[in-house]
Amino acid sequence: MSRDWRLDELARVVGGRVHGDPGRSIRGVATLDEAGEGDLSFLTNPRYRRAAEASRAGAILVAAGVELPGRDLLEAKEPYVALAQILETLHPPRLPAPGVAREAYVAQTARLGQGVSIEPFAVVGDDVRLGDRVAIGPGAVVGEGCEIGEETALRPGAVLYPGTRVGARCLIHSGVVLGGDGFGFATTGAVHRKIPQLGRVVVEDDVEIGANTAIDRAMLGETRIGRGTKIDDLVMVAHGVTIGPGGLFAAQSGIAGSTRIGERATFAGQSGAAGHLRIGDGVVVAAKSAVLSDLDDRGVVAGIPAVDLKVWKRSQAHARALPEMRAKMRALEARVAALEERLKKKGES
Amino acid sequence: MSRDWRLDELARVVGGRVHGDPGRSIRGVATLDEAGEGDLSFLTNPRYRRAAEASRAGAILVAAGVELPGRDLLEAKEPYVALAQILETLHPPRLPAPGVAREAYVAQTARLGQGVSIEPFAVVGDDVRLGDRVAIGPGAVVGEGCEIGEETALRPGAVLYPGTRVGARCLIHSGVVLGGDGFGFATTGAVHRKIPQLGRVVVEDDVEIGANTAIDRAMLGETRIGRGTKIDDLVMVAHGVTIGPGGLFAAQSGIAGSTRIGERATFAGQSGAAGHLRIGDGVVVAAKSAVLSDLDDRGVVAGIPAVDLKVWKRSQAHARALPEMRAKMRALEARVAALEERLKKKGES
Amino acid sequence: MSRDWRLDELARVVGGRVHGDPGRSIRGVATLDEAGEGDLSFLTNPRYRRAAEASRAGAILVAAGVELPGRDLLEAKEPYVALAQILETLHPPRLPAPGVAREAYVAQTARLGQGVSIEPFAVVGDDVRLGDRVAIGPGAVVGEGCEIGEETALRPGAVLYPGTRVGARCLIHSGVVLGGDGFGFATTGAVHRKIPQLGRVVVEDDVEIGANTAIDRAMLGETRIGRGTKIDDLVMVAHGVTIGPGGLFAAQSGIAGSTRIGERATFAGQSGAAGHLRIGDGVVVAAKSAVLSDLDDRGVVAGIPAVDLKVWKRSQAHARALPEMRAKMRALEARVAALEERLKKKGES
Repeated sequence: MSRDWRLDELARVVGGRVHGDPGRSIRGVATLDEAGEGDLSFLTNPRYRRAAEASRAGAILVAAGVELPGRDLLEAKEPYVALAQILETLHPPRLPAPGVAREAYVAQTARLGQGVSIEPFAVVGDDVRLGDRVAIGPGAVVGEGCEIGEETALRPGAVLYPGTRVGARCLIHSGVVLGGDGFGFATTGAVHRKIPQLGRVVVEDDVEIGANTAIDRAMLGETRIGRGTKIDDLVMVAHGVTIGPGGLFAAQSGIAGSTRIGERATFAGQSGAAGHLRIGDGVVVAAKSAVLSDLDDRGVVAGIPAVDLKVWKRSQAHARALPEMRAKMRALEARVAALEERLKKKGES
Repeated sequence: MSRDWRLDELARVVGGRVHGDPGRSIRGVATLDEAGEGDLSFLTNPRYRRAAEASRAGAILVAAGVELPGRDLLEAKEPYVALAQILETLHPPRLPAPGVAREAYVAQTARLGQGVSIEPFAVVGDDVRLGDRVAIGPGAVVGEGCEIGEETALRPGAVLYPGTRVGARCLIHSGVVLGGDGFGFATTGAVHRKIPQLGRVVVEDDVEIGANTAIDRAMLGETRIGRGTKIDDLVMVAHGVTIGPGGLFAAQSGIAGSTRIGERATFAGQSGAAGHLRIGDGVVVAAKSAVLSDLDDRGVVAGIPAVDLKVWKRSQAHARALPEMRAKMRALEARVAALEERLKKKGES
Repeated sequence: MSRDWRLDELARVVGGRVHGDPGRSIRGVATLDEAGEGDLSFLTNPRYRRAAEASRAGAILVAAGVELPGRDLLEAKEPYVALAQILETLHPPRLPAPGVAREAYVAQTARLGQGVSIEPFAVVGDDVRLGDRVAIGPGAVVGEGCEIGEETALRPGAVLYPGTRVGARCLIHSGVVLGGDGFGFATTGAVHRKIPQLGRVVVEDDVEIGANTAIDRAMLGETRIGRGTKIDDLVMVAHGVTIGPGGLFAAQSGIAGSTRIGERATFAGQSGAAGHLRIGDGVVVAAKSAVLSDLDDRGVVAGIPAVDLKVWKRSQAHARALPEMRAKMRALEARVAALEERLKKKGES
């Protein structure tokens, strides 16, 4: 971060407008709790409204219509997007210096674009193709025949098995393994015979993959991650899965083999889907849930097995009502017994 | 893949038989969707029958009794096993060239078998013993005193803590950590005091372990993975666990400390077992389920806590019937109230 | 382990007392099943009482009041703590030899304390500060500007992203990734725009982090792990999370972004918490459970969503009673119908 900014300069960056002092000087961005006089903070989640009121921030980024009396505000149509823009403006990313470290291993048959950076103890195998400005972190391994598009970065220790293809502008974090063997065995008697896993992993452009996530190669053909999909840490994507563009897969979610997921799917934390399913566009799967059957476009589901979210909520309410139902049942039994007794007496009388 | 094969040649490889043209020329194997004229495809899962009918594959591998009119078929008793055999035949595995890379670190006291391959930036510690044709991938670390049996391969970045023993013909994928400390602490007041973890991990022959799986060393004695067991990605096996031979552990499953699992267990994705349990032979644990108590041989369980699968299915059906039950309950209450009212009137009359 | 010990010597080490032969010679410690004549074993979990009776151990470590007739016993107030002390005494930890391996990469601007050990292919970046006796394992990566306190050890392949701070006496296992980018995107139309993740990870003193666990850096400010907290393998801690001191997080648990957890929390295996929550001191979250709302101090919860453990147990009991309830409901319906019929007849008569 090189210099101070005026609040109205930042408003121009994000196409927003200032309520209050347009000349307010902004040195950085900080959370509501930690911001001081020279910081811009942000109120994008209503549950932090009190923190916003109590914050010592010099100015606060808000959505249209949000009022914080006595505050300098920067109003933006999409405040979360504006926050991203401001952070990029104040903290432009530092790229590693181009060049191949003396301590790296790069096969002679590898072809490197302009401005590639390869750090110590990285390995770039035979016949690899790296696009311009690709950055290979320390200890990362790019197996034989891999192709990586321009401006993609591999963080320390990421591993691409042979034949993996990664598009442009991707970010592959540490510990990610792309192209490990799918979990495929033919069981005969008591023996699980390995089925050779001969396919590959293809990651399209603008994908981010979080730390220690594993995406397995297909048995044949491809495991494919669509353009602009973002995958969190410790996620598992099994062999032959296809994930459409624009998806969000939160931490520790998992997709079993050969399942096909449409565009803009959201899988929340620790959720999963069984294998060989067709899951539509725009689906949302709640945290901890398990999709065990095909799912239509725009399905919003929860539970194990996952059902429509409304159905799930109703069933939760019913489950909570169970103690009361049992009590009512006992009362009813008593009333019926009383009626029977009474009728019996009447019949006798 | 070196040459074309006749369909009847492949039939001989798998002990199967041809329906249709025995001279059909096969160049490769492909999925039903992607196969062309020169490809063999396969129909091993009935849900893909339509895809098989629509496939442009030159021939299709099927089980006995499956009919696909107008198609050249290769019928095999165990088609999935036959698929493995054919893939091995057409794509014999390429072994890394033997030899120790100049960029690797191998302790002088390590003993290496014939034809061992050690790639750049791998570390082989003191007193390690590597069997014949062991392959250590780039950046993999074999700690002091480890023993690895013949033809076992460590993929890039796999880590074996000191004292780990891995059998013959195992495949240890990238990011696997064998022998990390078990999660053992003695809590006294507010302090969790580390209990030294002095045992080891023993992996028997013919085991495969998927990317980023962690298997912890025992506090004392062994954590043991039985012969021929296959473990998927991101699985956790805690200290002191014993897993019998022939098991299958799908992705993101986890077994807590000291639990003993018999032969041929199947744990589906994201399932788990608590610690200190005895789990019998041949059990099957459904996806997302949690085994919280001992389990007899051949138990098939689901749910949290896991119960017999039939019981689980019934309880799911009952849970689904709850809304109807509540409605019936209300109707019954009204009927009983009406009866009471009527009897009351009768009594008064 | 250098020499034999007398049982009364070990009693002095742990402040306990001997029942039986104080001169009993102890060579090592072993599990009940594996112990022989020269071994001390231990009975700390009552479910192993029979194994203790059948054990061939020379002596057994027990809590006060535990009787095993005919056995030499070492009684200690906190036997599990005593076990830790005895194991440390018999097996003092071996530290790596100080020194920087010729095959490591250490930036010239890095500052190293006394007795630091850096093993082959480790990378220590610019402006890193390592305290005295820090041990960096093979292939571990310490990014620019990281600070590591004295006697902390990084196991092979652990990765610290730039700016990470780790306290003293921590143990960071293989495959751990500290400081990877938080999963933060501003979605506009169909595009998930990355929000720069500019904060850091701070790990306080005496923390242990298990194999392949990922802890993400905050967007701004810190993700913080409190002093003495112990984290198991394959755990996910998202950006901006704060975990108080003395916590225990078992394998495959996960905490979503910005959640704040108090002191001495226990999260069991495969459990999780949603984002933006406040979770009190001393909470206990059962295995497989999902905390989806704020949680008071000392809350003990289970289920998805997690509720008070007693409520959860009751609801489980109610759920188990459902089949019986349905049967009763049917019986009641029949009885009411019979009553109605009878009254109808009476009315007609």
